[in-house]
Amino acid sequence: MRLSINILLLATAHLAAATGNPTKKQLENRTKPFSIGIVLFPGFEPLDVIGPFEILQSVSAYYPMTVSFIASQTGPISSRSPPHVMVPGEPPVNLDHLIAVSLHATHTFSTAPKLNILLIPGGMGNMVLVENNDTSIETFINQRYDELDYLLSVCTGSVSLARSGVLKRRRATTNKSFWAWVGQFGEKIKWVPTARWTQDGKIWTSSGVAAGMDMTYAFLSKLYGAQGVLNSIMSAIEYAPHTDPSWDPFSVVWDVPGASQGGSLESCVKPAGW
Amino acid sequence: MRLSINILLLATAHLAAATGNPTKKQLENRTKPFSIGIVLFPGFEPLDVIGPFEILQSVSAYYPMTVSFIASQTGPISSRSPPHVMVPGEPPVNLDHLIAVSLHATHTFSTAPKLNILLIPGGMGNMVLVENNDTSIETFINQRYDELDYLLSVCTGSVSLARSGVLKRRRATTNKSFWAWVGQFGEKIKWVPTARWTQDGKIWTSSGVAAGMDMTYAFLSKLYGAQGVLNSIMSAIEYAPHTDPSWDPFSVVWDVPGASQGGSLESCVKPAGW
Repeated sequence: MRLSINILLLATAHLAAATGNPTKKQLENRTKPFSIGIVLFPGFEPLDVIGPFEILQSVSAYYPMTVSFIASQTGPISSRSPPHVMVPGEPPVNLDHLIAVSLHATHTFSTAPKLNILLIPGGMGNMVLVENNDTSIETFINQRYDELDYLLSVCTGSVSLARSGVLKRRRATTNKSFWAWVGQFGEKIKWVPTARWTQDGKIWTSSGVAAGMDMTYAFLSKLYGAQGVLNSIMSAIEYAPHTDPSWDPFSVVWDVPGASQGGSLESCVKPAGW
Repeated sequence: MRLSINILLLATAHLAAATGNPTKKQLENRTKPFSIGIVLFPGFEPLDVIGPFEILQSVSAYYPMTVSFIASQTGPISSRSPPHVMVPGEPPVNLDHLIAVSLHATHTFSTAPKLNILLIPGGMGNMVLVENNDTSIETFINQRYDELDYLLSVCTGSVSLARSGVLKRRRATTNKSFWAWVGQFGEKIKWVPTARWTQDGKIWTSSGVAAGMDMTYAFLSKLYGAQGVLNSIMSAIEYAPHTDPSWDPFSVVWDVPGASQGGSLESCVKPAGW
């Protein structure tokens, strides 16, 4: 179809014009088949997973990668959280009245292949795992940590990172509406109250839900140094990313202690690269 | 947990303070258990589905609704498009090198319950359905159209609406990077070149992928008239919505014929209601 040719030509033009000055590592990354793992658990937050995944899927047309969706069992994993203690001392609240979607887990923690990148989403289900003293995700993080090139979390996924111990003496952030809850986990963690996302070494953490997309755009920009390709993709999915990691109006909305008060709640965005 | 109490209190305060002046219909809608159908097909665009769904799932904690994921068969439906003709006259291109996610279809076109709202996503798989003269989605739309309160499409999902005939003499839009391809379908359709989303009667259509979230925010604002609840949800998922349906910089990026050239490519957003 002429349209497809036009898209290919446009993409190629972008590629040629705006790939910048990639480093040797970035050039290597463009031919390295990254093995990406995304953890799922009952009550995961759908957009925590699919926001980043949409961008990754689009990039996979250009650069090689594989994905494994990893959970305690394979098959459909629901975004509906099991009954959850909302008020201490009271019985768990049944959340069956919420609608839910199921994503298909392709691997278990035991069968997951060697990974280069691991992404941990958040969701109400995090609270249930903590209540049940379930440490399967934390155990998996510790088993895989040394082999990983990068460890990413979205939203309250940073709770798993905190509980695993890998965030000790590292900067991290989380969904600002759950700030108080998350802060109790782990030790010597430098929780950053005002951050759309953080990076400390190979660990990237984002604020809540939709912030995962902005973190992913920044992360892939660093990984590949191929701004032409990435910006073309962002325009194909018509998402104008927030590119300033210090823009975090939700830390103000949710009254996070220590949040910067001077910054603007507003962010002006446009098509990436324009 | 104290945190959960705080969230409940905050949400309640928002509810009390900012539910505005709802119409009689909007008040009725808040107690009406909307039956929502979301169609899936091989090669659907993940964020077309999950962007809107994330917001709907959050709203379902407050207002009753059910969801059915509808496809030609139940079980996992992959976002990987089957082989696709990219250049006319040449064999289909295999897209197996792209990563994919599978969502679980709960119903078939035959078993889907009565629906109040039907959402049709887009994706590369649209092209394959057209190439194969597959009209199952269009047939389903026509079967259900009269019973629907609302019909929504995201991205190239408007192709299905066009092919079904329901867009005749109606305004609609689509993913701007696929503008030329979509325009060939249907007759007497008022395709709108500059639009983040359109509404014409009970039919809402959005531009590409991420625009589905902005359309959903606007749609639910109109449906419930409960701005306090909805804005609280948008802040919980930390998405600052684009609220101007005429903001469509991607129509400029993708050179859509007839696109408005005078508007700003930039949109300044902040937490909903702030």
